[in-house]
Amino acid sequence: MNRPQPIEKMVGIIKKLPGVGPKMAERLSYHILKMPQGEVDRLVDSIQNARRTMKCCSICCNLSEHDPCPVCSDVTREKNIVCVVETPQDLIAVSKVKDYKGLYFVLGGALSPLDAVGPDDIRIDKLIKRLKSDSISEVIIATDTDSKGEITAVYLADIIKILGIKVTRLGYGLPVGGDLDYADEITISRAIAGRKEM
Amino acid sequence: MNRPQPIEKMVGIIKKLPGVGPKMAERLSYHILKMPQGEVDRLVDSIQNARRTMKCCSICCNLSEHDPCPVCSDVTREKNIVCVVETPQDLIAVSKVKDYKGLYFVLGGALSPLDAVGPDDIRIDKLIKRLKSDSISEVIIATDTDSKGEITAVYLADIIKILGIKVTRLGYGLPVGGDLDYADEITISRAIAGRKEM
Repeated sequence: MNRPQPIEKMVGIIKKLPGVGPKMAERLSYHILKMPQGEVDRLVDSIQNARRTMKCCSICCNLSEHDPCPVCSDVTREKNIVCVVETPQDLIAVSKVKDYKGLYFVLGGALSPLDAVGPDDIRIDKLIKRLKSDSISEVIIATDTDSKGEITAVYLADIIKILGIKVTRLGYGLPVGGDLDYADEITISRAIAGRKEM
Repeated sequence: MNRPQPIEKMVGIIKKLPGVGPKMAERLSYHILKMPQGEVDRLVDSIQNARRTMKCCSICCNLSEHDPCPVCSDVTREKNIVCVVETPQDLIAVSKVKDYKGLYFVLGGALSPLDAVGPDDIRIDKLIKRLKSDSISEVIIATDTDSKGEITAVYLADIIKILGIKVTRLGYGLPVGGDLDYADEITISRAIAGRKEM
């Protein structure tokens, strides 16, 4: 006997979500079938409400209920500096740093030749257009430090420097609060290169 | 800056699902926001459709589109033998074993004194009522082989034996300490063949 068709269908769709395997999808599906109706309604409503209300900010491409988003429309922020991140989640991580008062730009991914993700598949054109029209003096590239993020950073630096804009990259080094013996060689090597006098 | 409120709400609800932590909930939420609308509709529809169409079979408490379920209404099955499982997933795992031709009963959980799950919280009364009214000659207890499943098996064996019904437990071909629905067909088949009277 197989699972009834409606459950099979739900499992099939849920297992396509990232990080969810077949067993996890089955567990989630049967859990959802056991949940009180009110909880299922809240789950579905929260998904549909987020989909309906979240917009892509026309300036920075961050997800927001408003366009422009609260950061882009905040007059107190420094308008001449832009931090480029891969995703809206990355933007929120950087925004927790109180000393950064500039603006943002969300690329919507990173270059990945192996996955056939090229410059046209992320928002590089839109970024360049913005840098040309607004008076930006510095771009901080805060893409991930994996190979895709690195490739993207190098690619962006090359084309932004042509515009005469200063390009910086987040400093490498040891994560704060970490054990030195858990850090990999490349990180320690970068931390030595970036050492500061005390 | 925090996540926009609609995303925060979706993350908060998704992270309450079993096996989903805060980071996974965030990943799933942002993925759902990026999915094409058609895929989101299919996800939501599959949940709502499964919720709407799946019923609890009034005889065995399995989830099914029909009441009684296909197993209970199958005239070719042996009506005098009942296999007791914890969940509908466990029922499907056992049903893959071709040599078992009897019926089922889904308890809806297992006794767990530490979690305050007692006999009234699972369908023991309903099982006993069925055993008294139908002419059952054997009950195979196929609860999980973890401590909760074992406690439930011993408890059930005690009260079913009073009814003059033979009680057997799946043989220990099963790996001890595991979830029944993770076992492969051959292991379950061996366990049925090697079942012992309790």
